[in-house]
Formats: sequence, structure tokens, C-alpha cells
Amino acid sequence: MNEKAAVGERAAEEYIKDGMVVGLGTGSTVYYTIVKIADMIKNGLTISGVATSVQTENLAKSLGIPLLDLNTVQKIDIAIDGADEIDPQFCAIKGGGGALLREKLIAKHAEKFIVVVDSHKIVQQLGGFPLPVEVVPFGAKLTEKAIQKFGCKTVFREKEGKAFVTDNGNYIIDCYFSRMEKPKELAMALNGIPGVVENGLFINMVHHVITVDKKDKVIVL
Amino acid sequence: MNEKAAVGERAAEEYIKDGMVVGLGTGSTVYYTIVKIADMIKNGLTISGVATSVQTENLAKSLGIPLLDLNTVQKIDIAIDGADEIDPQFCAIKGGGGALLREKLIAKHAEKFIVVVDSHKIVQQLGGFPLPVEVVPFGAKLTEKAIQKFGCKTVFREKEGKAFVTDNGNYIIDCYFSRMEKPKELAMALNGIPGVVENGLFINMVHHVITVDKKDKVIVL
Repeated sequence: MNEKAAVGERAAEEYIKDGMVVGLGTGSTVYYTIVKIADMIKNGLTISGVATSVQTENLAKSLGIPLLDLNTVQKIDIAIDGADEIDPQFCAIKGGGGALLREKLIAKHAEKFIVVVDSHKIVQQLGGFPLPVEVVPFGAKLTEKAIQKFGCKTVFREKEGKAFVTDNGNYIIDCYFSRMEKPKELAMALNGIPGVVENGLFINMVHHVITVDKKDKVIVL
Repeated sequence: MNEKAAVGERAAEEYIKDGMVVGLGTGSTVYYTIVKIADMIKNGLTISGVATSVQTENLAKSLGIPLLDLNTVQKIDIAIDGADEIDPQFCAIKGGGGALLREKLIAKHAEKFIVVVDSHKIVQQLGGFPLPVEVVPFGAKLTEKAIQKFGCKTVFREKEGKAFVTDNGNYIIDCYFSRMEKPKELAMALNGIPGVVENGLFINMVHHVITVDKKDKVIVL
């Protein structure tokens, strides 16, 4: 079974209604949600999308999904996105693709936020996946030092041998924790460091998770 | 009496020692500190500066103060800067000049942070001065809405009829609170909003305040 396709499509079928403004996430699972939404539009659905990345913007445009500029949007009815890891309290790590700030902005302002993940992304404790932290280039080395005080190893993300630069002109530091016991407190503390723009912890934001159970059945948590 | 000159010069005389790495703030009071440091260098002092803004960088260079790049600095011994307001618990509002992130980065990483202010900047409760909040341009209107939930009126800062852009490529939203009763909690909460890069509240960072008392005497608090 293609878990990604199954959960991605289910999100569109279950939650997308006529007239909605929909936050469109980024990645290999929500890809199927976006393709499904395009199908539904062909069959008469009317919605507007808001893209979390240039990649998703291009995909949506190519499929004929009408898009709105985030700054002109009055409200977002629902946002659907993937995650790198999610725990039983619905705390998630996102940002493997580097778009964490835009994804978090849209998730935060959406009335409902749905996460679509294959079963491998469901974990008992976060931390297997490195936590991405977006930082301002100015003083980034000092910001890195301040982050390391939380007990993680840090690596500046690179792309083709150069510093990876986000859509907002910032760097990403990937933070390797051996354990992450208090994600909520960690998220607050990281954002309190001058130079940190945002971190990849999504806490108290997820309303539902769509995934696959051990019997290969798509479930909504 | 020129209060700004008196307190600015006093900071240099009292705290700057040979061999130090010194964070150099921005503004009309710390201006006198920088000029005084340049004098001390002419009389044999050896220090290196780290500038909080392009303005200060240019001033320091013109006065012959050697500067270091923040990313190459191992530690900052002391930072000296002004403030827009400071209360009896040494909570300060800074960022009227728009350099709050760089100022906060340098203050945070300095072993000692000294604030130099004329007596008008000392207040019983913060909030007379608008609180500057630096935000990412993407989704800035939604970020503004999230900030307004804290009970303030907001204005995007402009310069010559256009959006003011910080040295980091972001916008500044000036937030007018009628009262600011819990600055520490407010600072944490603001930084938790996706899209907020940093805010102008400096909490638990100031070691000493140099100002002028009612008898026109320079005092160190």
C-alpha cells in the first residue's frame, strides 16, 4: 500500500469543503492531498489555496488550483501538511524541507490544522529527527553557541557545498538531541534566543492526524 | 548639564579596561561612550569593538576604534548601549532606532551589559514608548493580527513613505500598549508567534544602569 497516497488523499476527501481557503503544505505526503484537491476542483469544487513554499506554489499552479497571497487573506479555514515526526501528544517536528517558518505561520493562522503522515513518522518521543532552527545570518555562530546550551549537537545546513538559505534569507541549524523530553519548554526557550527566528517544533497546533494503523487502515486521530 | 554626555562618558571610564572586546551600542547617549573610548585609545588603551549597527560601525571606524566581525568573536566582555525606557527591575525597551535584534544579540552574549540613559528614560512602568517588534515580511499582516491579541495598537514602521526594512531584511511593527504589566511574559509570548523575529523588550539582561539623579549627579545603579 502507498501510505502517503492513502493518507494524503483522505485528508482532501474528509476536510475540504466548498468555499474554503486552504493552507497547502509541502512534501511527499501532502503532494497527494494537493493532487486530490485539483481532481475535486475539476469535479466542481471551489476553493482557494495558500502555499507554504515556492515548490507547492508551482505544483498548485500547474494543477490549476487558484492561489491567494498570504498577506491578502482574511482567514485560513484549514491547513494540511506533513511532518517529520509526531508524538502521541500531537507535538510535531517539521522543517526538514527548510520551509518551517512559512509552514508554521500558515498552520498557526488556520482554524484547523491537519497533519498527514505515513506510519513511520509516528514516534513515542520526538528527537530521532534533527530539529531545524531558522536563524538570522548576523551573529549566527553566537546563536549556535546559545542553542548548544540546550544539550544538542548542531550542524549548519548546507546545499551543494554552500550555506542553505531559507525563503526568508536566513540559515537553518539542524539540532541533534539524544532525547527531547520537554518539547514545549524547549520551543519557548529556543524562540527566546536573540537571532532565532523560528524552530521546527509544532506544539498545540495540530487538530487531527491522518495516518495508517498496523492493519493498513487509514485512521484519523 | 548634558546628561547624555555625562553618563555616556562615565560608562567608558568606569568599565572599559585594556584588552576587552566591547559591544558598541547605537544612539545619542552611547555616542559619547564611543567618542570617549576613542580618546582612551589615543592615550594608550587597547580594545576591540563589535558594532550593533552600520551607523555605529561608521562612527567607530571614523574615530579609529578597531572593530571585529561578530561571527569571529569568541566572547564579548562588555556591551554598552542606550535604551528608550527602563524600569526599576532593569527591564528595558529598545529598538527605536530599528537595530533591536543586533543590539539584543550583542547584549545577550556580553558578559556584562551596561545601559546608559538620561534621567527621562527611567520610568516606573514600561509602555510610554512603543514596543518595536521585528517581523518577517512573509505573512506580516497575519503576524500583526496575532500581536494585536495582546491588547496593543500596531503601526508598521515607515521611512520616507515606504516600509522600513531592518539590517536583516525584516519589517518593524511598533506596538502601542496603554499599560505593560508583565513585560517578561509578554516578551516570551511575542517571540512564540511565528513570523516574529525579535521584540524590543530586554529582560534579565541589564547588569548596571548609568544615569543622572535629581541632584544632577551621575549614578551607577
